[in-house]
Amino acid sequence: MKQGINVGLLGLGTVGTGVISIIKQHQQELKHQVGCAVNVAKVLVRDIDKKRGVEVEENWLTTDPAEVCCDPEIDVVIEVMGGVEDTKEHLANALKNKKHVVTANKDLMALYGAELLHLASENGCDLFYEASVAGGIPILRSLADGLAADRITKMMGIVNGTTNYILTKMSQEGSQYLDVLAQAQELGFAESDPTSDVEGLDAARKMAILSTLGFSMDVSLEDVSVKGISQVTDRDLHYCEQLGYTMKLIGIAKRDDDRIEVSVGPTLLPNDHPLAAVNNEYNAVYVYGEAVGETMFYGPGAGSLPTATAVVSDLVTVMKNMRLGVNGHTVHAPLHEKVLKEDKEIDSKYFLRMRVTDKAGTFSAITSLFAEYEVSFEKLLQLPLDGGEEAEVIVITHHTSKENYRELYERLQALEVVENVESSYRVEGGQ
Amino acid sequence: MKQGINVGLLGLGTVGTGVISIIKQHQQELKHQVGCAVNVAKVLVRDIDKKRGVEVEENWLTTDPAEVCCDPEIDVVIEVMGGVEDTKEHLANALKNKKHVVTANKDLMALYGAELLHLASENGCDLFYEASVAGGIPILRSLADGLAADRITKMMGIVNGTTNYILTKMSQEGSQYLDVLAQAQELGFAESDPTSDVEGLDAARKMAILSTLGFSMDVSLEDVSVKGISQVTDRDLHYCEQLGYTMKLIGIAKRDDDRIEVSVGPTLLPNDHPLAAVNNEYNAVYVYGEAVGETMFYGPGAGSLPTATAVVSDLVTVMKNMRLGVNGHTVHAPLHEKVLKEDKEIDSKYFLRMRVTDKAGTFSAITSLFAEYEVSFEKLLQLPLDGGEEAEVIVITHHTSKENYRELYERLQALEVVENVESSYRVEGGQ
Repeated sequence: MKQGINVGLLGLGTVGTGVISIIKQHQQELKHQVGCAVNVAKVLVRDIDKKRGVEVEENWLTTDPAEVCCDPEIDVVIEVMGGVEDTKEHLANALKNKKHVVTANKDLMALYGAELLHLASENGCDLFYEASVAGGIPILRSLADGLAADRITKMMGIVNGTTNYILTKMSQEGSQYLDVLAQAQELGFAESDPTSDVEGLDAARKMAILSTLGFSMDVSLEDVSVKGISQVTDRDLHYCEQLGYTMKLIGIAKRDDDRIEVSVGPTLLPNDHPLAAVNNEYNAVYVYGEAVGETMFYGPGAGSLPTATAVVSDLVTVMKNMRLGVNGHTVHAPLHEKVLKEDKEIDSKYFLRMRVTDKAGTFSAITSLFAEYEVSFEKLLQLPLDGGEEAEVIVITHHTSKENYRELYERLQALEVVENVESSYRVEGGQ
Repeated sequence: MKQGINVGLLGLGTVGTGVISIIKQHQQELKHQVGCAVNVAKVLVRDIDKKRGVEVEENWLTTDPAEVCCDPEIDVVIEVMGGVEDTKEHLANALKNKKHVVTANKDLMALYGAELLHLASENGCDLFYEASVAGGIPILRSLADGLAADRITKMMGIVNGTTNYILTKMSQEGSQYLDVLAQAQELGFAESDPTSDVEGLDAARKMAILSTLGFSMDVSLEDVSVKGISQVTDRDLHYCEQLGYTMKLIGIAKRDDDRIEVSVGPTLLPNDHPLAAVNNEYNAVYVYGEAVGETMFYGPGAGSLPTATAVVSDLVTVMKNMRLGVNGHTVHAPLHEKVLKEDKEIDSKYFLRMRVTDKAGTFSAITSLFAEYEVSFEKLLQLPLDGGEEAEVIVITHHTSKENYRELYERLQALEVVENVESSYRVEGGQ
C-alpha cells in the first residue's frame, strides 16, 4: 500500500471546508484507524482567487474537473459541489478512472443513485453517500449494517432542518408561516429560494434514498407523494396543541406484505412520540423493525462540520476497504421488486379543520357523511367563530384508506353547510 | 467458500431463542446479503429435554461446550449464555480453534474484553459484541464507523432498562421506589435479585465498554464511579418536576484534554434534553462529537428479539468478512493512554435537598457556607415542613468541582441548623 491516500474534492463550499478541517485536525486518529496518512491533493473550485474559510495550499486548487477525476495519483473523489447533471458526469468519470467516490449529494443520489452504484460496482469501486441523508446522523450505515438482520417495516423521518425549524418556531411562538420563514432566511436556516425545502421536495429525495436502502427496492423520487408546509397556519398548530399533538413535516415509508407507500407531508404526532420532541433544525429518523421494534436516530441534519463528519466517516470506510483490498463489494441489487400500494391500501388517521355554517342540522349533516363512509371520530371539537354565523369543526378520524378519505373529503367540501375545508393532515403514531 | 456457514450457540435462553427465530425467518434476506445460507449446527444447553420457545432439531443440542467450541465444522460461535469465568474459557477455546465469536455478554466484555479481543486478533478471528450495550441500538457500530471521523468528547447513556422503567413510573405515578420495584419484578422488567441493575453496576459495565470504544482508551469497570437509584425518593422526584427537571440513571463519560471521567448515578436533566423524553424500559445513548455536535441513538435496551437483532447483525458482518477473507482486522489497540481526571477536575452542577431547623439565621448560615466554597445557586426553594419547626431547602447549584462539592457537603451535614442532607444528585445538560 502507498504511503498515504490522496483525496480529491469537487467543491469547496461549507461542507468541503469542513471536510478539509476535519482531515487536518484529526490526522492522528485517521492514521490510527486506517494505517496511513490522508492527503488532500486537488480541489475543484469555481474561483481560484476566492478567500476560503480554511487554509488551502495554492497547488491544490483547479477549475478543471478532469484534474480531480482523471489524475492517476488520486484514490478517492469527494463530491461536495452539489448540482445534478454535470456532477453526475464528473463522478461517472471518476469511477471509470477507478476512483472511489464519497458524495453528500441527495439530489444526485435520488435521481441517479442506482446508475452510479452500478457503475461503481462494475469498476470495483466504493460509492458511499451517508451525508446525503440527515447530515451527521449515521442512518444509512445503521440500516445497512446495524439492522441488517431485521425486516424494516416502517420509517418516519424528520429529514429537513429548515421546515422543522419553521414548524418548531410557529408552534412555540404562535407565529405565522411567512414571518418565521423570513426569520429563518435571516438566520441562514432557509435558502433565499426556499421552495425545495418548504414544498417537501428535499425531504422526498431523502425518503427515496432511505426507502431504497431500508426496503431493498428501487424507489425513485416519483414514487413519493409530496405535500409541503407552506399552507400550514398558526390556527392549525393551535388546535394540534389543544388536542395533544405536535405537527412535523414527516417522511413516511411503510411496507405491508412487500407493498410499500412513501410520502412526505405535514403530519400530526402524539406528543409522547419520540419524533415529537425533535425540535428546531434537528433531524431524526424513526425506524420500526419487526424484530428490534422502535429505534430512533437523532442529530444535526445539516451544517458544515456535521455533514463533513459523515463524509469523512465514509472516507475512513473506503480507506479501510483499500487496506484490505475489498472495495466495490458493498452494493447489492435490490432484493425485492418495488410494488407501490394503491390508495385503497394506504391506511391512516386524519386531522380536518372545517369552517361551517353555525345552524341546526350542520353537525348532523357532517356526522352522517362520516357515517356513510364508515369513518369514525377519535376526537371532535366544535367552536363558534367570531361573528357567530359560522363555526369551526375540528376532527381527528380513526383509521381509513386514502381512497375512502379522498372521497369523503370531496363530499364534505361539497356539503352546503360546509363553507370550506380549511386544512387536512395525516395523523400518525399511537393506536 | 462453503455452501453455507455453520453457527454454534452457547446458550438457548430468551436471546438464543430470538437468534434462532431470526435466522430461520430471515433466511432469504440473510442469503441475499452474504451470498450463502446460514445453518445452526450445535447449541449448548444445560438440559436437553427442556421445552423450548422455538423449534430446534434434536441433534443440535449438546451439554458439552467442546462440541460447539472445538467442532471443525462450526465457523462462528454465538455466546448468549451469560456468566463470566466459564464463559470466558469457552470463548477463548473457540477463538483458539479459529472460530469467530459474537457475544451479547456485557459482564464478560467489561471484565475481559481487551484480553479476548487480543486473542481474536492473534487468531485472525472477528469478535463482535454490539448486543452487550443497549440491546437493539447499533451504538457500538455508530461509534466505531459512523462517527469514525469525529473526536467524541461526551457520552451520556440511559443504558439500563430496569432502572429507567422504575424512575419513569415513580415520576409519572408519584409512587415509592419499593412499590414500583415490586411491580417491575412482577412484569418481568426487573430480576428477582435486582441489585446489579438498581445499584448501577450493569450500567457501569456498559459505560466501561462505551468509553473504551468512544475514547479509544482501555477503560475498566473500576474506573467507573457508581451510585444506584435505591435511595431515590418520591419527594426528590416531586421537586425535580417542580424545577423543570427529569431524573434518570445516567452513565456519563466525558473527555477534556485527553483526561476522562466515567460515572453512573441518578442525574437531573432539563426537561428539554433529548434524554429526558426516553421513558419506560427504553435505552438511549447521547453522543457529543467535536464536529458532529449532538446526536442520540434510541431503542429497546433488552428483550429477546431486539437483542437477537444486534447479535445476528454482528453475525452478518462476520459472514461478509468471511466472504471477503478479511476477518480479524477490526480490532485496534487503544490510541490513547487512559488518564482519569482527579476530583478537582470533575466539574458539575448539583441538586441538594436538606432538612433544616426553621428559625432565624438558618438560611444565612447555609448561604454563607455556599459563599465560602464559591458555589452559587442556580435555583433555590425553601418550604416549611409539617409541624413548622423544620423546613426543607432545595438547591440547584452552578458548576463546581467534585472535590469542592464534597467538602461543602460535609460542612453542610455538620452545620447545626442542618438536620440532615436528605439527598444529593448530579445535574447535567443546559448551560
